[in-house]
Amino acid sequence: MPATAEQEVSALAQRYLTDVKARLRASVPDSPSGYFDILRYHLGWQDRDGGPVDEDSGKGLRPILCLASCELAGGDWHRALPAAAALELVHNFSLLHDDIQDEDTTRRGRATAWTVFGTHQAIAAGNGMRVVADQTLLALADAGLSPETITAASVELTQRYLEMIEGQYLDMSFERADNVTSDEYLDMVARKTGALIEAAMYLGALVATNDNAAAQAFGACGRQLGLAFQVRDDLLGIWGDPNATGKPVGSDIRRKKKSMPVVFLFQSVSAEDRRWLDGAYAADEVGGEEVERVLEMLDRLDARAYVQQTAERQASDAVSAIDGLGLPSNARRTLEAMAQYFVTRNK
Amino acid sequence: MPATAEQEVSALAQRYLTDVKARLRASVPDSPSGYFDILRYHLGWQDRDGGPVDEDSGKGLRPILCLASCELAGGDWHRALPAAAALELVHNFSLLHDDIQDEDTTRRGRATAWTVFGTHQAIAAGNGMRVVADQTLLALADAGLSPETITAASVELTQRYLEMIEGQYLDMSFERADNVTSDEYLDMVARKTGALIEAAMYLGALVATNDNAAAQAFGACGRQLGLAFQVRDDLLGIWGDPNATGKPVGSDIRRKKKSMPVVFLFQSVSAEDRRWLDGAYAADEVGGEEVERVLEMLDRLDARAYVQQTAERQASDAVSAIDGLGLPSNARRTLEAMAQYFVTRNK
Repeated sequence: MPATAEQEVSALAQRYLTDVKARLRASVPDSPSGYFDILRYHLGWQDRDGGPVDEDSGKGLRPILCLASCELAGGDWHRALPAAAALELVHNFSLLHDDIQDEDTTRRGRATAWTVFGTHQAIAAGNGMRVVADQTLLALADAGLSPETITAASVELTQRYLEMIEGQYLDMSFERADNVTSDEYLDMVARKTGALIEAAMYLGALVATNDNAAAQAFGACGRQLGLAFQVRDDLLGIWGDPNATGKPVGSDIRRKKKSMPVVFLFQSVSAEDRRWLDGAYAADEVGGEEVERVLEMLDRLDARAYVQQTAERQASDAVSAIDGLGLPSNARRTLEAMAQYFVTRNK
Repeated sequence: MPATAEQEVSALAQRYLTDVKARLRASVPDSPSGYFDILRYHLGWQDRDGGPVDEDSGKGLRPILCLASCELAGGDWHRALPAAAALELVHNFSLLHDDIQDEDTTRRGRATAWTVFGTHQAIAAGNGMRVVADQTLLALADAGLSPETITAASVELTQRYLEMIEGQYLDMSFERADNVTSDEYLDMVARKTGALIEAAMYLGALVATNDNAAAQAFGACGRQLGLAFQVRDDLLGIWGDPNATGKPVGSDIRRKKKSMPVVFLFQSVSAEDRRWLDGAYAADEVGGEEVERVLEMLDRLDARAYVQQTAERQASDAVSAIDGLGLPSNARRTLEAMAQYFVTRNK
């Protein structure tokens, strides 16, 4: 990846994430019930016995995009901190439930919450995480935002995470579906990943400008960036370096994820290969030898290059979405660097 | 139960629930993904194949209390319809997840959603139900409420359902706990059941008066009513008529629910009986003969009368909570009838 793109995003992360973390910690309440310990465990602040730790709590992309959008749109990013924290909490709500739905036993190198505290408790904790997110967003009032703006922010966040949940539902349905078209795939991804990144950039720009049109342009940029992010994620889910991603090569194939390379494959292979593929995907899990053969088919079709080009086109479209706003040229350059990072990252 | 109390509540239900149902149906969106079909199934509007039905969708107590509070506080109840619908949706969100957590296979005489559509899909549908609730509440703007009032309504609903989720979490923890005191029990119930009924009455009064103090008095009334409702529920869970409740006699004992009669029993028995109880409750499920013996112990202690008196005292405290507001005497009588219904109902 070009050093500048990664450096630029890393510089933004350094500038923002200390304050985001402080805001997050202030958001999760104490309670004698022990209920919020599950949230703190998941967020990497506590071990399973409630002792303090400081573990990897994720890349913080949504807060970074939210605060950067606020700044790029001419605002003071500190005022958008409640929105940035709310987005990270919504993201983690979805991860808590995702880990149950996918039966994942580790995340960020630690045992997932449901394996430590039980499935039912982790469902409840995920619900709590989302409520804490809603409460945190309402703290925009303390930053001096008008009730009208806060209501608009609340409507946006609510609509986008409904889309996100629906996208996750579609993603689950696709694992069992015989046929998923590229359009269906992109619609699912736009919801599953695009919607919350759309909300991140919309909210940052809304706090800065109080102007719905400008916020929507940033939101459109975020949605495209989300698509680019997910398509790159799909690429890494098959061809990523296991040391960087923490997943074995081909893991998304084994799990029958209908990710972009696989959707492309099903649509592009010969009738004979398609019959074989249908057979391999009829099992509960795609076996080791079958995974090898799927990887060979993908190679023959140059699927990796096709997927990467798709991600790059989406990243470029994302940046174009804010062209009409007349932002200073350095704002566009920052966005370009972020978009570049999204489609070149290795983990 | 006195005919008047039941008649009064039934008259309120008849007046309100047609409009509530229409508002609910308008709230759940259509989507080609099929995702919202699970919500409509759970709400009794669709069968498992998506065909239209009109099944029992619950008593609608929270909407009734919300709209009645609006009216009693001097407002036009139609304006509170978005709040009433949001409360019913939040309640149903919690039922969708509850049925998974409790592994219940039937509700209101129908197969629970998770048994029809799968656990993961039902978790996602529950999440969606709550988002639809949030969106529905924001429609108070269409009823002409100010953004300040809507923000206050949103903060209230959010805080109260966080309490509700925490209460459910505590309820689950108690099933495994060796010792639960009456205070712990009442604190749990105030959250699990009281919080959302508090929200119902708070929101109705807020829409009517735009006055936080009046809304809080109604909210306090609701919280006490919620306690009374749950304590009566606990009574019916052990001694209710199986034909009315749909549950076998003693079902809450078999499931080791630490409901009020059981908490009272554990605190009141002799040391010898306590040792026996601890043994019976150490198993995964309390067996049939043990259930009989627990029922005998409860009889010896006159537990049923104690529990009923507790519910009646809470109902009376509930009505007193609005005494300071100077409401007309017929408003107090309506509240008394509702409180009376809560503690005398048989299902």
